[in-house]
Formats: sequence, C-alpha cells, structure tokens
Amino acid sequence: MKVDSLIHSGWIIPVDAESRVLRKHSLAILGGRITELLPTDQARAKYRADDEIDLPGHALIPGLINTHTHAAMSLLRGIADDLPLMIWLHEHIWPAERRWVNEEFVRDGSQLAIAEMLRSGTTCFNDMYFFPDVTARVAAAAGIRATVGLIVVDFPTIWAASSEEYLHRGIAVHDQWRNHHLVRTAFAPHAPYSVSDQPLERIRVMADELEIPIHMHVHETRDEIRQSLRDHGKRPLQRLQELGLLSPSLIGVHMTQLEDEELESYAASGGQVVHVPESNLKLANGYCPVKRLLEAGVNVALGTDGAASNNDLDMFGEMRTTALLAKGMNRDPAALPAPQVLRMATIHGARALGIGDETGSLEVGKSADVTAVDLAAIETQPVYNPVSQLVYAAGRHQVTDVWIAGRRVLSKRELTTLDPEEILSRAADWQHKIHQA
Amino acid sequence: MKVDSLIHSGWIIPVDAESRVLRKHSLAILGGRITELLPTDQARAKYRADDEIDLPGHALIPGLINTHTHAAMSLLRGIADDLPLMIWLHEHIWPAERRWVNEEFVRDGSQLAIAEMLRSGTTCFNDMYFFPDVTARVAAAAGIRATVGLIVVDFPTIWAASSEEYLHRGIAVHDQWRNHHLVRTAFAPHAPYSVSDQPLERIRVMADELEIPIHMHVHETRDEIRQSLRDHGKRPLQRLQELGLLSPSLIGVHMTQLEDEELESYAASGGQVVHVPESNLKLANGYCPVKRLLEAGVNVALGTDGAASNNDLDMFGEMRTTALLAKGMNRDPAALPAPQVLRMATIHGARALGIGDETGSLEVGKSADVTAVDLAAIETQPVYNPVSQLVYAAGRHQVTDVWIAGRRVLSKRELTTLDPEEILSRAADWQHKIHQA
Repeated sequence: MKVDSLIHSGWIIPVDAESRVLRKHSLAILGGRITELLPTDQARAKYRADDEIDLPGHALIPGLINTHTHAAMSLLRGIADDLPLMIWLHEHIWPAERRWVNEEFVRDGSQLAIAEMLRSGTTCFNDMYFFPDVTARVAAAAGIRATVGLIVVDFPTIWAASSEEYLHRGIAVHDQWRNHHLVRTAFAPHAPYSVSDQPLERIRVMADELEIPIHMHVHETRDEIRQSLRDHGKRPLQRLQELGLLSPSLIGVHMTQLEDEELESYAASGGQVVHVPESNLKLANGYCPVKRLLEAGVNVALGTDGAASNNDLDMFGEMRTTALLAKGMNRDPAALPAPQVLRMATIHGARALGIGDETGSLEVGKSADVTAVDLAAIETQPVYNPVSQLVYAAGRHQVTDVWIAGRRVLSKRELTTLDPEEILSRAADWQHKIHQA
Repeated sequence: MKVDSLIHSGWIIPVDAESRVLRKHSLAILGGRITELLPTDQARAKYRADDEIDLPGHALIPGLINTHTHAAMSLLRGIADDLPLMIWLHEHIWPAERRWVNEEFVRDGSQLAIAEMLRSGTTCFNDMYFFPDVTARVAAAAGIRATVGLIVVDFPTIWAASSEEYLHRGIAVHDQWRNHHLVRTAFAPHAPYSVSDQPLERIRVMADELEIPIHMHVHETRDEIRQSLRDHGKRPLQRLQELGLLSPSLIGVHMTQLEDEELESYAASGGQVVHVPESNLKLANGYCPVKRLLEAGVNVALGTDGAASNNDLDMFGEMRTTALLAKGMNRDPAALPAPQVLRMATIHGARALGIGDETGSLEVGKSADVTAVDLAAIETQPVYNPVSQLVYAAGRHQVTDVWIAGRRVLSKRELTTLDPEEILSRAADWQHKIHQA
C-alpha cells in the first residue's frame, strides 16, 4: 500500500494511554495523518513510500508542545539577566519593548523563535505577544502549529489603545485564522493584575461563544497576591472564580502561589495549568506544586516562557528541570517519573489547548506531528530505557527530523521552511540597533 | 613570531580576577602553554602558526572542570531511574557493580565518559571509582586532565579486600602517576558512613605527606546524618573535624546538610566544596547552600556526579541548574550571576584540585586548556552578553573545539584521540550483557 511517508525507528514512544514503548516499529503517514504504527518487518512488507527513512538508533516521539511562550522576545534573549524582577521588568524589558516592538520585530523575533523550536523538536506553541496576526502568519508559513494569544491589557500599547480595541483587534485576528489547519487563537488577558474586571467578564463570554481557551499568567509571584489583596481584598484566583473564569477553558500559567483550597477548587473547575519551571526559578518566583496538581487530577502542561526570561525555548531542558525539581522539592526521587514528564510535554499540552484529539500523541488518525531523536550519540549510550534517556540525558541537538501534519519541516537538522541565514542576519540587525541605543 | 597555535575568537572570557570579557581577541599557544591574549588585529601582525583558526562567532573559555564524577558508571546510564535512593542503590546500582565491574568495564566506561566530556568542553575531571589505574591510563591516552581517586571503603570489593589493601593499592597508583603532566591522584575515602576512623586517620597523614587532596562524599543525605548520630553520637562533619580532616585538602562533595556552625567551621578550615546540583535533585537529597558558602569565602566547584545518577556529564547543564536553582532557593534572581557560575565551573574546580596555578583560567603561563563554544547558532542569537549566553542558553553541542595542554583533542566536533565507533561498539556490548542478565 502506498503512503506519503514511512519512518522505521529503533523505538516509537507514542505517549498513549498505556505508555507503551515500541521497539523496532514504523510509522506510516498519509494525508498528513498517522495511518498505522506497526513492527518494522511488517511495515516493510505492507507499505511503500517515496519518503521512506530508516532511523534505527532514533526514538520517535510526539512533537513537543510549548504551552507558554512569547516567541518574538527571542530578540531580547540575554539582554538583562541576574537582576531583581522589578528592575529587570521596569528598567530593561518594558523600556526595550516600548522602544522596539513593532510588526517587523514580531516577525523577525517569531521566526528566530520558530527556527529554534523546530530545531529542538517542538511542533506546537502557545504564544502571548503583541501583533498575534504577525506571529500567526509567520507560524503558518513555517508550517508549525500555533495558538496565538489575543492579548488584552489595561494600558495602551502599540497593539491597541483600550480594552475595547484589544478585544476588537483580537476578534479580527480570530476571524482571520478561524479555519486554518495549524493556527488557532486563544484570548490572552495578560494577568489578573493587569486586566480589570470588565474586560475579563467580556473575555469569558466571548471565549465561550468562540470556543477558544483563555491563556493567562496566574499567581506568578508573591507580589501579585499582595497587590490583589490590597486592591481587591481577595487573592487573584478568588477574583477569577467570582468572575466566572475558572473553567476547563482557562490555561493558568506559572501558578507558583497556591493554597490547598485554591488547588482543590482549581482542580474542581477543570482548569489547565502550565508549569514553567526554569522561568520561575530564574526570576525567583516560587515553585508550582506539579505533583500535587497532577494527583488532584489537573492537566499540567509545560512551557519555556519567552527567551528573555528563560533564556531558551528548549523543551528538553524544561522536561529535565521539571523532573529533577519535582524530586528535590518533594524530597521524593520517585516523584514525576520520566514517562509522566514526557506526557506533560506532549499530550497534556495538546489537551490544555483543546487539541488533544488532533495532536500530542502518536496514534492512528491524529495529525502526524512527530519528532525524531537520535539516541545513538555518545551522550545517550547505552540505552536501557529510551524514555529515561530522552528526559535525563538527551539534548535538543539530538533532534534530527520533525514532521508537522505530515510535512517534514526539519530534515537531517536542516530547516525546510525557513531560511536560517536570513533569520540570523535580521537578528544581528536588531541586536546592533538595540545594543547601540 | 612563531607559535604552535593561534586562535582568533569573537570573544575570549579568560575567567581572570577582573572577570574581563575580551571582544575580538586571540589566544597564542606555545609548548602547551598560553603565551598571550591580545586583540586579533595585533595577533595577526605579531604571530604566525601552522595551527591558526578563525572563530569569529565563538567564545573561548577555560576548559570546564568536572570536580566530581564516577566516569566508568556511564555504562550504567539510565539503568534505574525515578526510584527511592535505597532501592536504587541496593537493588540496582550495587548489584550491577558487584556483577559487572572489572578492569574492562572501567576502561570502556571511562572512555565513553571521556568522549562525552571532551565533546562538551570538559578538560579535567575529578574521579572516584574502582581501578583508578585504569581510569588514569585511559585519561592519559585520551589527553584529558584527570585526578583519579584512590578509593577506600570499609568493605571488600573487586579492587581491594581491606582498608590496608585499599591504601596499599592506592599508593601504588599514586607512585605510578606522580610525574605525569595530566594525571594526578587524590585519596578518595568514599564517605563518612562507609570509612571508619582508623583508615581516615591514616589517609589524613598520608595525604599531607604526598601533598594530594582528599575527595569524599560528605553530608550527602539526611540519613547519613541520622546514622552518624546513632553510631558515633555526632554529625559526620564533627567527626571529620575531630579526625583532623577539615583542611584545604578536603574536597567535600554534595554538602546538602549544613547547619550554620558547620558552614562557618568548614569555611574557617579552608575546605573545598563540590556542588552537584542535578544529582542532589534527582536523588532528592537536599540542596547545598552555595550562595552562603561563597559568601563565607568557601571555594565551591561544580560536578556532575556519575551518569548513573545525573544522567549525563554535561557541565553546561550543571552550570545552568546551579544558577537557576540558587535563584529559586534563595528567592533572589540576583543570586549566583552567570560570571560567578562560570568561575565555579572552571577556576574554582582547579583550585579545589590544587592545580589553580596550572589551569582553570586563560592566563599567560597557564596550560592551554581551552574550550571553544559556537555562539553563532540560532539557539544563542542575538548575543548581548556572551557569559549569559554560555550559562543560560548554550548547549554542550555548541562546543566545537577543545585544547588540553595545547593539544587539540576535539577538532570541529571530531575527537582526535579517541575512536567513537569503538567506544560505542563496546558500550553496546556491555548494554547487551547487562540487559540480558
């Protein structure tokens, strides 16, 4: 039988309900979707494909899902590090953004970010930044799956002057992309402290109507809690609950400050959580209680945050930090075993974004969003347990090939949809301009 | 003037007392030593070399020093993860070691480890394992700098049957390698709980005589403290102090359990500390108070631990984890800035090993132990601050070239002193044997 692509792999880790690890299996792709996973000897007999490759030392995994980032901020990578949060934000990041962010900045920064993500096996990202239409256009052209955030904040920025205009422009972006096979939208009210009640209520209503998620920084810092208690007489989660925002549509990012009752009511609401461990550490914001959230049945996904805070978009690094930190913080070396962390970086991300039926695992009928990781390198030998190698030893540079909806967007480490020379040249131009200023 | 090697680099970060970052500088090497660091335009006029290379997008840093590992354990990488410490040790690691460790295991495992270390910019490692003579031989042949541990434990192993024999064999290894330009030795009593008073006292005397360090796991776990209180009526550090072991010769590894007075008396003794953050997290052993130790004037170096616990020998990963974790644990985003972490991974390691005059920084007269990191990749662009990129964004695969004592042991990612095919083939043989068992 003829298929579009046939990948023979040393291991396939589908991240399915049974957490299977398939040795010497093959993946058949037709029309952008997974047709079958079967033992390689059977696959060779049953299928043929123009695009047929042998990866005997590789593991195939679902494409990684970066469930929280600000892609365009890659152009500010490392501009200000090792600083207290408020100095970092008020004296460096926000002034730089006010001075430099425009459509070209978002185009060039998003391309740099997408190149980095594709080269590290990420096939889908959940973004929050100005000019989401530009990010959407760049993502679609690069062939990467994206949910772009329809940003809303109380203060005027280059993207909009009022909450009315933020919503208006956001809906226009949503309408423009509503039928795209890769790009989706989410409302992205920045944070409880930067968006007031009235726009939050409108977002809740509209998110229900449009059936899109609400992507928001929630309980990121201790200051955020103090400020909310001062200004609203209640903690942010309490306020969001009263505004009707706690629901399966809410993608709460960071969540480092959680009291027991908050954790329980969040779990009861069916809300999503995105764990962003390296950003939380680097900015000293606290620790999201991942193990307890998972035990309470919450769907916890993983994100890198923007490259100005992390400073990379490396989901392999984020997986490792997630696993290591959970053990340390819980004083339990059995906390968050490798297969669970791989689930967080794949299927949990898809579910958080409402696309768990489309991507996040290698299962028949789903979109062929596939990452191939070379485990034959010195750094990951020997292989007693490929999942352990992926989480604890592999580096992102061991990703050699990536398919999204069946399209091979990374081929033997080469980007097929982006021009790295042009991206690097534009990044250098921005660096020169920003550095001179 | 003729030199052996001349490297023109986008940045040189010498890790000197002034923490300078030199833009567009060159490094001249003659007779294995650094002759001069100077601006590239001057270097081109002044020097010529058969081995002259241009690395305009690279940063040159001192070779990284992995101050605590068990190299040969790379053959057990990922054999047992996500398990409670005692199950991991008693049911997996120790049985595997009893069954498999012999001279060939140590040879093949050390070669695999050294290949991994060279490919990640590590030019020196401080080892603790059985058959230190074999590790020494493999290291010398590979051209990597090593301090091999003359291991001592109370119970019999394949290496020795009694503390008498451990010491005897250790001294023989020391005598054999005492004049080697790359290989040194240290006494390596395993830990306070596994070595009794009498051999520790003898080690102290002999370490003074031979002028070599004492490399020891100290205060790694809470259990170790409890056990010592039960068996000796005192905490391990107190016992070591009474035995006279607290001195600048002591390289105390882990140190996750430290009371204030212990920290102070350790600082007063001039003892060395090796921070092993990823191993401590993964085995849930606690956190070494690095910031406070540094503030107290203690020389804190970095190590990866063995690949069975970490599961890699990646000093870039260890630097990142060190910086991130210090900020999180101290609730201070300014804790352990990137330049300080780079110092820990280089000159602090050299000082801990007593070879701070020979290596650990790029300064005139020192051995040319140099690592070149390509910052031109998408993952580390733009470059506002190269030290920040090294610690927070670069991956070990961005190391392209490594020199040790002037010899280019990694050249454009190719190992020049080791045969990767043979190493991988032997690792596969071991995996097959061990996995079958």
